[in-house]
Amino acid sequence: MSSQALALVEKEKAACLEDLKAFLRIPSVSTLPEHRVDVERAADWVAEQLRAAGMEHIEKIATAGHPLVYADWLHAPGAPTVLCYAHYDVQPPDPLDEWQTPPFEPTVRGENIYARGAADDKGQLLLQLKAAQLLMKSTGKLPVNVRFIFEGEEEVGGEAIDDFVRRHAERLQCDVGLVSDTAFFAPELPSLDIGLRGMVYTEVEVRGAASDLHSGLYGGAAPNPFEALARIIAGLKRADGVVDIPGFYDDVQAPAPEEKQSWERLPFSEQDYLKNEVKAAALTGESGYSVLERTWARPTLEVHGMPGGFTGAGAKTVIPARASAKISMRLVPNQDPGKIRDAFERRVKELTPPAFSSQVKVLSLAEAVVLDPRNRFVQAAARALSAVFDKEPVFVRSGGSIPIVALMGKQLHVPVVMMGFGLPDDGLHAPNEKFSLPNYYRGIASVMRFWENLAIPERNL
Amino acid sequence: MSSQALALVEKEKAACLEDLKAFLRIPSVSTLPEHRVDVERAADWVAEQLRAAGMEHIEKIATAGHPLVYADWLHAPGAPTVLCYAHYDVQPPDPLDEWQTPPFEPTVRGENIYARGAADDKGQLLLQLKAAQLLMKSTGKLPVNVRFIFEGEEEVGGEAIDDFVRRHAERLQCDVGLVSDTAFFAPELPSLDIGLRGMVYTEVEVRGAASDLHSGLYGGAAPNPFEALARIIAGLKRADGVVDIPGFYDDVQAPAPEEKQSWERLPFSEQDYLKNEVKAAALTGESGYSVLERTWARPTLEVHGMPGGFTGAGAKTVIPARASAKISMRLVPNQDPGKIRDAFERRVKELTPPAFSSQVKVLSLAEAVVLDPRNRFVQAAARALSAVFDKEPVFVRSGGSIPIVALMGKQLHVPVVMMGFGLPDDGLHAPNEKFSLPNYYRGIASVMRFWENLAIPERNL
Repeated sequence: MSSQALALVEKEKAACLEDLKAFLRIPSVSTLPEHRVDVERAADWVAEQLRAAGMEHIEKIATAGHPLVYADWLHAPGAPTVLCYAHYDVQPPDPLDEWQTPPFEPTVRGENIYARGAADDKGQLLLQLKAAQLLMKSTGKLPVNVRFIFEGEEEVGGEAIDDFVRRHAERLQCDVGLVSDTAFFAPELPSLDIGLRGMVYTEVEVRGAASDLHSGLYGGAAPNPFEALARIIAGLKRADGVVDIPGFYDDVQAPAPEEKQSWERLPFSEQDYLKNEVKAAALTGESGYSVLERTWARPTLEVHGMPGGFTGAGAKTVIPARASAKISMRLVPNQDPGKIRDAFERRVKELTPPAFSSQVKVLSLAEAVVLDPRNRFVQAAARALSAVFDKEPVFVRSGGSIPIVALMGKQLHVPVVMMGFGLPDDGLHAPNEKFSLPNYYRGIASVMRFWENLAIPERNL
Repeated sequence: MSSQALALVEKEKAACLEDLKAFLRIPSVSTLPEHRVDVERAADWVAEQLRAAGMEHIEKIATAGHPLVYADWLHAPGAPTVLCYAHYDVQPPDPLDEWQTPPFEPTVRGENIYARGAADDKGQLLLQLKAAQLLMKSTGKLPVNVRFIFEGEEEVGGEAIDDFVRRHAERLQCDVGLVSDTAFFAPELPSLDIGLRGMVYTEVEVRGAASDLHSGLYGGAAPNPFEALARIIAGLKRADGVVDIPGFYDDVQAPAPEEKQSWERLPFSEQDYLKNEVKAAALTGESGYSVLERTWARPTLEVHGMPGGFTGAGAKTVIPARASAKISMRLVPNQDPGKIRDAFERRVKELTPPAFSSQVKVLSLAEAVVLDPRNRFVQAAARALSAVFDKEPVFVRSGGSIPIVALMGKQLHVPVVMMGFGLPDDGLHAPNEKFSLPNYYRGIASVMRFWENLAIPERNL
């Protein structure tokens, strides 16, 4: 079948490329109000492609923000139902002058196509859609039942889809999710993400005096909230990288020994990572854990910014009345975000010096996700990748959070397969974003093959 | 003479008020480019008043920024020369909707005149100028030689006057400076500022990774510069308020016992200060020192803002490549700003964790100033205030820094008398700024009387 799938794609390559270019020409930047019409146009374009593919119940669902696009094909009785997700919105293209070719004039150079959204996530949306289109065209049917739900707000927080999934779980009823928004661990190394970290994102506000005061007149007597925040932050994490919040590590579930061992076999050098990726004087974090463990399987705490006071050029002598710190924690499987939030709040209170009051505002909470690599859906995806790429895929995790994955798990009670075809150097959110065309074509074939594998009853494996 | 001086002012009150209103109507906001023409207009207005007063060598001195206005009257051979300073520029008026009457439509309510710049510093500039004008009008001469140098950049850093004083000290040659830009310690309590703190204002930048990184993907391995800054700040000052920089307190010169005792007699309650001014849960600072000692006679260290990273609304998960902290130290007499800067830099390096690099940029350096209350010029000012206000003035300090005072001391080698007529509740830099009209009129008389006192040979006192 993999050769069949690849042959099918091979025949349609030119059309697949032309459609990808057409899609990439629409500047569907969801963060910028002036592109609202373009986001709408991209949704219409996707809906039209779904129609051309022979999908049914196509609907552009209006939301408070940008529309969702839904479609399904449910004529494979007895076979599982797959809910496919990707997003059609993109990041802003600036800085524009760093692009070699304009961000919305897709250009093929070598084996890559360059354009904003090429890898994140239009190329990956279209490879799911093309899998359906090519199968329908050649066989008139799909091997499984398929639902598509595409969103246009992934780059601005995904509120609409969050709301929709919570309220209309019955319309998305399925057996497994398929999310294509991730990347290979290395070129030519097909990868399946089976773990994501969760998150508790907070803003800690500390108040001292009732109003801003002059540091000359009041310095030495008035409480300085930045000083208090410095003590709080220094108290939340020890100098050796261990998060100093009572109970923080209590529920951490370590990865299975086999999973840890498999990480050691990945093409990864901590020295190269420091030298070529992080480019700092040294790495930080808990001792006794490898970089992959620290970023994939250990919870952590980071400060993202400290609003308040005077941040302009030059010297202004203010003791601000209040100052804040944006502090987030990444969570790992088995940690309860609510419990961690409570422990964090208690610790912040405890660390707040006497002359101050502090308040923790929670901006987002998400559970970590982890799948057993032996899960039948994960295995079906692994066999698909292995057949198409002619190489055993690796099981990796990501230290980041993909809210839709946790959401589908929680609201629809299904495992979510993260099969993405980006590469580590695709330059997401950066100038000269690209997508590998061989991965685009093989991605189409992989999705076909994944569906085929799901259609084979387990007893026949 | 005080009754003479007051009688003279009494006769001209109406004109003095009209001129003050005319001056206050000019929106000479030095920080806003759109008011450049108004700042220029204010300089012209001041020059015209100096001309009308009979001053000579009037010059509007062009600078890289806003103009200086110079004038002199040097026909009192044998008498000392007084260099009078004030500034004609003002702060922006926003928030506009909090003003009871428009900021540039001066309005008298009760005994006060309300307008932006009323107390800071147009009312105080004009009282110096009116002293000369009224004396010239009634007697055709001044009792001392007088130079005026007025600036239009005080609210934006005063670069032009700094440059001018350094380069043209000979044109400002004098025996004493008179700066009117301060306030009484309490209403009806004439006050002479004899001490100002100095300053070292820095920006500490810490760098971790070479570029911003995603906290999901890199959190747990990449260095976070805000965390480093938190440790640095927490290390620069102990939790008990003592600055933890080796050598920081070495050269601190304590105020004379008599000066300290006089502070204890001031109408000042630490409880009221906390309740009505600072309005925090508690005061902070070194234990064993009173609030007035801590803010007037002890050096301190404050954080003003922490630029870098993400400070917008919502949740963005970035580990910034660099972050900064604006940190200043206030210095007291006998501390050398250069020595303190060096000690600070050494301590910051010492506190910078291994994975980071840090850099200290110094934005401004100023020495503290202190005058002996027995100084003959200070005494002449004290007698003037005592005669006009019929009350012994108090000698106070300010925890702030007035760069022109240190500059005149250093470049012109003269003591600078700070005789200002503001009140603690004038609302400088805030909506509904006001100036007490009785203090305006008595200020004019006080300056006249100060000049008269200086003209009396010391042996006749």
